[in-house]
Amino acid sequence: MIVLGAGFGGLWAARTLAPFNVDVLLVDQNNYHTFAPLLYQVAASEVGPEEIAYPIRSIFRRFQNVEFELGTVKEVDLERKLVKTNNRTVQYDYLIQGTGSVVDYFGIPGAREHALPMKTLEESIAIRNHILSRFERAVHERDRNRREIILTFVIIGGGPTGVEFAGALIELIHGALVKDFKTVNMHDVHVILVEALPHLITSFPNRLQNYALKRLQKMGVEVRLSSPVAQITSDSVHLRDGEVIHSETVIWAAGVRGNPAVRPTGLFSSNRADFVSVKSTLQIEGYPEAYVVGDLAQFEENGHRLPMIAPVAIQQGTHAARNIILQILGKQPENFKYRDRGYMVTLGRNSGVAYLLGHSFTGFAAWVIWLGVHLYNLIGFRNRLFVLTDWAWDYLLYERTARLITSI
Amino acid sequence: MIVLGAGFGGLWAARTLAPFNVDVLLVDQNNYHTFAPLLYQVAASEVGPEEIAYPIRSIFRRFQNVEFELGTVKEVDLERKLVKTNNRTVQYDYLIQGTGSVVDYFGIPGAREHALPMKTLEESIAIRNHILSRFERAVHERDRNRREIILTFVIIGGGPTGVEFAGALIELIHGALVKDFKTVNMHDVHVILVEALPHLITSFPNRLQNYALKRLQKMGVEVRLSSPVAQITSDSVHLRDGEVIHSETVIWAAGVRGNPAVRPTGLFSSNRADFVSVKSTLQIEGYPEAYVVGDLAQFEENGHRLPMIAPVAIQQGTHAARNIILQILGKQPENFKYRDRGYMVTLGRNSGVAYLLGHSFTGFAAWVIWLGVHLYNLIGFRNRLFVLTDWAWDYLLYERTARLITSI
Repeated sequence: MIVLGAGFGGLWAARTLAPFNVDVLLVDQNNYHTFAPLLYQVAASEVGPEEIAYPIRSIFRRFQNVEFELGTVKEVDLERKLVKTNNRTVQYDYLIQGTGSVVDYFGIPGAREHALPMKTLEESIAIRNHILSRFERAVHERDRNRREIILTFVIIGGGPTGVEFAGALIELIHGALVKDFKTVNMHDVHVILVEALPHLITSFPNRLQNYALKRLQKMGVEVRLSSPVAQITSDSVHLRDGEVIHSETVIWAAGVRGNPAVRPTGLFSSNRADFVSVKSTLQIEGYPEAYVVGDLAQFEENGHRLPMIAPVAIQQGTHAARNIILQILGKQPENFKYRDRGYMVTLGRNSGVAYLLGHSFTGFAAWVIWLGVHLYNLIGFRNRLFVLTDWAWDYLLYERTARLITSI
Repeated sequence: MIVLGAGFGGLWAARTLAPFNVDVLLVDQNNYHTFAPLLYQVAASEVGPEEIAYPIRSIFRRFQNVEFELGTVKEVDLERKLVKTNNRTVQYDYLIQGTGSVVDYFGIPGAREHALPMKTLEESIAIRNHILSRFERAVHERDRNRREIILTFVIIGGGPTGVEFAGALIELIHGALVKDFKTVNMHDVHVILVEALPHLITSFPNRLQNYALKRLQKMGVEVRLSSPVAQITSDSVHLRDGEVIHSETVIWAAGVRGNPAVRPTGLFSSNRADFVSVKSTLQIEGYPEAYVVGDLAQFEENGHRLPMIAPVAIQQGTHAARNIILQILGKQPENFKYRDRGYMVTLGRNSGVAYLLGHSFTGFAAWVIWLGVHLYNLIGFRNRLFVLTDWAWDYLLYERTARLITSI
């Protein structure tokens, strides 16, 4: 059987299948699994890129029955049960597709050309390089207006990623960079978080939304709510209400969609964004041997699409794998039920908001919970140790150690 | 005063000057200092790139009188005492130039186009990516001959870098990769070390040269001595004796020269390789305010040029800085005398050769000395901790944790 994608969905599917007497081919375009929830910390120089990536072959080293292929999925043919990659064409008996999502720019003019996405390790490194380079550039700019443009950082999207990154970025600036760039006037620096809806982190309870907003504002983040973006150029962001923000750094944390390039052929779906609708068993309607998990799966519970977060992908990947084992044993696949343990975001040091098992947490408690959950879920003891060390450095010394401008 | 380059020479010069009441401008093309002696370990997936790099601004944070500029040196004008960078033109009263060396391909046809240098962090990452990609590629190659070409790795140059990298590479393959690529026949893998002279590590005593040769051969490295390279193509290395090695991976560890782009203008020198001849005080003849240190300095002791290694650069950088302080105090600059504490290379796990204070060490003793010296000299506690952890991982588990193929 074939598992496409080694994100949270695909990786957990393969891990679930591995101990059984089945042959698994796992395909991913990288040779490593990315711990996506910490990508924003790479972008904010908080942890090194290698610390949140783990070589996939190592994970399955013990399992002779799991094969890994470094490759790009070119086509998924449900009718003929085959997958084409850039290396070869392979037949499958069962398929679990967890190829995730890609950035959706909502057709906003200039967004694709000028906004920096943060979906992959490379993109996060590119953001880190860009931000640090802006400060190096500002040192040599004598014109105050030009300097302010260079040092204005706009984050589009007030969801969990945008909120966490805004907090991490302003702390990078007020912690480490203020000491490193003594000649740069920190009054010229602006971190602006732009959200189209009237609230930040809309999926959170109202009290937590307000807490996050106040906290970010107190840290110095300028938050624009109800501010849809009309256009992005190389040095400005135009909001629909007419405001123009002058900036050379626009980070896109706003929207995602299914990847049309890896959409199974011959499939029609009602949803707008190239996601693949699945049955309550996670199977594709009409193709009982094909499952879709994670971001790519359009799975609705009580009329709502499940959020695109790691716990959903992990649970779906595990569930799809179990269903395949059931099918092999001649049994009926079971319906997927999401066990929602909650969700959380950090808001810089000592603060965060968390909604867990029906309870709301704010401030230090939420922050500690967030640290523990993310550290626990990182793969590999080495990565945990390194991330913990970097966090401790940052916490105790206000130091960001991964502050390199590399030439990618 | 201006210090050009934040390698070992420039960095130690700036560190020596910093506590004095002088204004220092330190210029480097990267915002980090690279611990070059461990570049080969990045290329061999042994340590992560961030672990051997350290942000320069952090080092001088305490010193208001040290300014850092991220920039490329365009011109050094000794007559008019000014330095042009890509950002601006700056006047100096004193200059310490430690801009190092660049790769010298000795005019061998195809070398520049097809051989991979290992002088910078990016180049080392590129080698890592390339080697790991070859294994991923070999999985899909059914033709035995083609597979052997894909899995043949040629290292040009049997100096310390080539020798250390050959040992690290063969251990990467026989340790981690053999387990990860179960379908790859390790008999198809070749690591070939090519040296033009009749000995490896020519600057070492003869006994240590022989020890290194035997040890590498025992580990499985195929060593070609007295084998100058005639030509390199995209899939072969032609030796001058007529042998053709088929390989898609040629790593260049053979030669370096001064960087002609940052050579002071109007300067003539007798040496062939764009190095800058200096007086015994490290000053440029005729320009008492201009010093050259490290790889770039052509400094001879007893008729021999000092080796291009970190200890020489560190001592010269420190010495040049002290001489400038002497000059400011109205005293005469002093002659530089290299305190040679020795040199050493590792040969994989548990082995190495070292020549220290007139004594030769081989095997485990040399290896332990090497570990201690390199760990001690890494800047920053975090980097030391991370490198030590990675080394412990490798040693105890035969595991290489930094095994990522990134898209640079």
